[in-house]
Amino acid sequence: MAYRTPVRDMHFLLEHAAGLDAVRATGAFDDLSDDLVASILEEAGRFADEVVAPLNPVSDRQGARLENGQVVTTPGFKEAYAQYVEAGWNGLAFPEAWGGQNLPATLALAVFDALCGACLSFTMGMSLTQAAVKALLAHGSDEQRTLYLPKLTTGEWTATMNLSEPQAGSDLSNLKCRAEPVGDGTYKITGTKIWISYGDHDMTQNICHLVLARTPDAPEGTRGISMFLVPKYRVNEDGSLGDFNDVRVAGIEEKLGQHGSPTCVMSYGDAGECLGTLVGEENAGLKSMFVMMNAARIDVGMQAASVGEASFQHALAYAQGRVQGRPYGVKTGQQNPIYDHPDVRRMLFTMKALTEASRALCYANMAAYDVAHRSSDAEAMAQAKRREELLTPLSKAFSSDRAIETTNLGIQVHGGMGFVEETGAAQFYRDCRVAAIYEGTNGIQAIDLVGRKLGMEEGGLAYDFLDEVEAGAEALRASGHEGLAAAGERMAAEAKRLRETTAWMLTAMRTETEAGLTGAVPYQDQFGYVAAGHYLLRAALAALGEKGGAVDAYLEGRIAIAAFYADHILPRAEGLAAVVTAGAGSVAPIDPELLIA
Amino acid sequence: MAYRTPVRDMHFLLEHAAGLDAVRATGAFDDLSDDLVASILEEAGRFADEVVAPLNPVSDRQGARLENGQVVTTPGFKEAYAQYVEAGWNGLAFPEAWGGQNLPATLALAVFDALCGACLSFTMGMSLTQAAVKALLAHGSDEQRTLYLPKLTTGEWTATMNLSEPQAGSDLSNLKCRAEPVGDGTYKITGTKIWISYGDHDMTQNICHLVLARTPDAPEGTRGISMFLVPKYRVNEDGSLGDFNDVRVAGIEEKLGQHGSPTCVMSYGDAGECLGTLVGEENAGLKSMFVMMNAARIDVGMQAASVGEASFQHALAYAQGRVQGRPYGVKTGQQNPIYDHPDVRRMLFTMKALTEASRALCYANMAAYDVAHRSSDAEAMAQAKRREELLTPLSKAFSSDRAIETTNLGIQVHGGMGFVEETGAAQFYRDCRVAAIYEGTNGIQAIDLVGRKLGMEEGGLAYDFLDEVEAGAEALRASGHEGLAAAGERMAAEAKRLRETTAWMLTAMRTETEAGLTGAVPYQDQFGYVAAGHYLLRAALAALGEKGGAVDAYLEGRIAIAAFYADHILPRAEGLAAVVTAGAGSVAPIDPELLIA
Repeated sequence: MAYRTPVRDMHFLLEHAAGLDAVRATGAFDDLSDDLVASILEEAGRFADEVVAPLNPVSDRQGARLENGQVVTTPGFKEAYAQYVEAGWNGLAFPEAWGGQNLPATLALAVFDALCGACLSFTMGMSLTQAAVKALLAHGSDEQRTLYLPKLTTGEWTATMNLSEPQAGSDLSNLKCRAEPVGDGTYKITGTKIWISYGDHDMTQNICHLVLARTPDAPEGTRGISMFLVPKYRVNEDGSLGDFNDVRVAGIEEKLGQHGSPTCVMSYGDAGECLGTLVGEENAGLKSMFVMMNAARIDVGMQAASVGEASFQHALAYAQGRVQGRPYGVKTGQQNPIYDHPDVRRMLFTMKALTEASRALCYANMAAYDVAHRSSDAEAMAQAKRREELLTPLSKAFSSDRAIETTNLGIQVHGGMGFVEETGAAQFYRDCRVAAIYEGTNGIQAIDLVGRKLGMEEGGLAYDFLDEVEAGAEALRASGHEGLAAAGERMAAEAKRLRETTAWMLTAMRTETEAGLTGAVPYQDQFGYVAAGHYLLRAALAALGEKGGAVDAYLEGRIAIAAFYADHILPRAEGLAAVVTAGAGSVAPIDPELLIA
Repeated sequence: MAYRTPVRDMHFLLEHAAGLDAVRATGAFDDLSDDLVASILEEAGRFADEVVAPLNPVSDRQGARLENGQVVTTPGFKEAYAQYVEAGWNGLAFPEAWGGQNLPATLALAVFDALCGACLSFTMGMSLTQAAVKALLAHGSDEQRTLYLPKLTTGEWTATMNLSEPQAGSDLSNLKCRAEPVGDGTYKITGTKIWISYGDHDMTQNICHLVLARTPDAPEGTRGISMFLVPKYRVNEDGSLGDFNDVRVAGIEEKLGQHGSPTCVMSYGDAGECLGTLVGEENAGLKSMFVMMNAARIDVGMQAASVGEASFQHALAYAQGRVQGRPYGVKTGQQNPIYDHPDVRRMLFTMKALTEASRALCYANMAAYDVAHRSSDAEAMAQAKRREELLTPLSKAFSSDRAIETTNLGIQVHGGMGFVEETGAAQFYRDCRVAAIYEGTNGIQAIDLVGRKLGMEEGGLAYDFLDEVEAGAEALRASGHEGLAAAGERMAAEAKRLRETTAWMLTAMRTETEAGLTGAVPYQDQFGYVAAGHYLLRAALAALGEKGGAVDAYLEGRIAIAAFYADHILPRAEGLAAVVTAGAGSVAPIDPELLIA
């Protein structure tokens, strides 16, 4: 079955979950009429469905490969990418001065959503290129911007993100890549980087690597890391391409999924001829890289939700077409499509509810980003920044963990056919798996949440959010709609429990860090169920008409899925509360020899 | 890192979770001394570790393939299988009269556990062959037994299980394969069967297919299905091989995992020359097949737990060797193995606890089988039969669902390396995925649980089990060990909640079946967490010495993992209780067109 961008769902969640009105209120965007939003989504959907989606099975079977030291991408990627650039999709949310269209990042995220649902491995380079534009807008020099932004904004060139080295992955303090000043403002870069998505490819003329490295006298640890812009081909002052810059691909990984996305081992300066320029200040590289990283984290959450959508559509089509079994207890007569079986619908609605909740969360996260970066009101800006900070680890971790579950159910709905590669269900399961790992594993996200994010204002970011969740729960309870009122009850109970574990976590991180860290991932899970549910239910409430019912069948469906979330998914948060507070003793080290005996 | 059969863990769980004493008390087995059990497990472990485990990565890369109409298996499979037969492993639990060793099926299951952990795709044929022996012992004619059992018991020939056809998978009522009586007691078989594991291979001289088919005048539906024994090569009266029996492989599937296990499309009687003999009575084929199916279901649960073990060992070794990061807040100095991070241990202990709980459940299930089939005490036999019936869907579904989680965590512990195929972590994730599907999807298991099993004695099987769980919880509370006492509290609370959802489910299945079926899988999950936890904690309690402490470090580790289960896993049952009772309204059909909009 062919993927179809869920344009109406996206539009609905942009308006009612993310709250596009708050983005409009920034005054930074000329026209964000319903019609404009709808027409952009429809056009993106058309491109995704017709041009990109057909590449998805091809990308799995004919993935990126290394040939004579160059990466050759999946047949069709180059042509589709050219159309993407030509249509201006890459620059949607960037300043007009650099060739962009000055639309909200939230809307650009919805476009990215459409593309990821169509073919995940096609999108990774775009995400990193856009993240690099954000980093250069924030920290690049005038010269860097002038030379690179016109090409990166449009996507004529792509960019990469170079952090990891074999001995430095989740912990960058041991990073060894070196940058020696040449004397003319440039640096000679030497070293090896791993996990470089789209580190090489054949889709554009140049590739711009943002590389973390150490200058000769840099202090040890993460305070001695600087960020460099290192192009594959040097760029002349007039913007034209110059010499090869001694940037090589040492290998590409054979991966569980995303075969279309080349994951490269990059070698810089093998011949001593690799030049880079400093981005931002020396030894402040992590700060610049985190602009890129934070953007990428929301994108990763989005990627996962999008693959969940594709997996859902695929499984739904199968459930409509596959005829097997009859109502319980009926032994003879005509058989039914398996969609008619309650447990099959339970699986499908779980997939849809998790996908929509993840989408709602990611969109809301990006709407906060838009307000935080573009509002003319300093107070609104500050509040939105706090929300953006809080939601980023949740968007990334919740959406990626839930996409593993969603795509797993996608296989299960297919029965035996799900285990057969030809069906396509397994590809979603394989492709999305890395989302829980890259751009910081979900364990790292949890440390960010309980350490840095709860650490701000003694949990103020979380408590303010819980105030909003509780107000939302009250509105649901007062809605006059039976299902949503019940959802409000459940949400109020879960918000209360989350308030308690938040208080526990704040104390633990101050007084018994190991206990806090033991509960960090369960806490992040608990928070994720509440936060994503909040945004999903907020949208469902908006779907209610004045008489306590939805005005059309589509909106009734929205409400039903949100109510399903409250009935079937949200109660998991209850089971997590006790786990969060289990304490460090529960994971006291055991001699590994006694664990395999 | 090399797989190592956890011989001591197995022995411990056989004695204290499964309760080998009850098996001894049947009086059906000559010698089940500790020494004998230990030496069998050690020898099986040696074979698994040294001969079978090295084949696992090979099986993934050089899977079974079809060549000139014959399946060629992974290099090394044939030789390893010959050793398996030679050592007598296949007949461990079968009568000496047929070449077996008259040992308990529980012990044979532990041997199977060792082999599955070493290389899952190698084991599928053995499981089906043993299941076929059970079916022929129960329903085969004297002639069938005489001709086939000597070869099947030893594994010199293998067997397959033929149920599914393209239009008849989970629902067999539409089965079309035909069997026409020839007049001499044999039948001409024609038709196509799919999902036939080891339907063809090059490891033995003959393959015996147990095939469901319809005779010409059979009634419609499942009451018109008979079971036939259909060899690849006919068997002469003296037991020697005769002519080719017109059994062909029409194709093999390209699967997500288990590449070493050929999954065949079988075509019977293309030339009208395929002969079979009836097993059991005409039109009673499902009854005979269910002997095979029930055995296979426990084996599938075991397979999943075994792969969980292998995944755990692999991840633990990585966590000991991979040095990354320092204690929270420490910025410089020596880095630590990631095993030192609380969240990494949380993941590893989750893997180990889920694996051990699944193993405990499967072993206990098979111990009930042994008593049910071999006891000299009619009452003990009847009670054990009830327990075997109740536990079978739980062993199959709980272990397979939890193995998906375990192997998923196995990838996560590896970080980025987990997504790279070379590492091997992803193979476990791929290989085990089908366990939740084959031998009846886990949704089918749930229908068996809430329909057939709860339907017996108005829930009496479940209530009696809950009595035992509550007695166990009381013993834990009285143990004087802090962790186990807390586990007893939690277990008592979950048993109470499960009693409530059981009562709800019984009513629902009588009065509002759709509501019951909507809650069936969540109920099965809830029951699984309680049941597996019960057996795990029962063993942990046995590890306690007289003074309320364990007598050695190994046993302390057992107790710690069981207590971890109570702290980190069992609370999920709390979150499931509300989901079970959500009702049919929560999955009321939505027009699929409104779900992709």
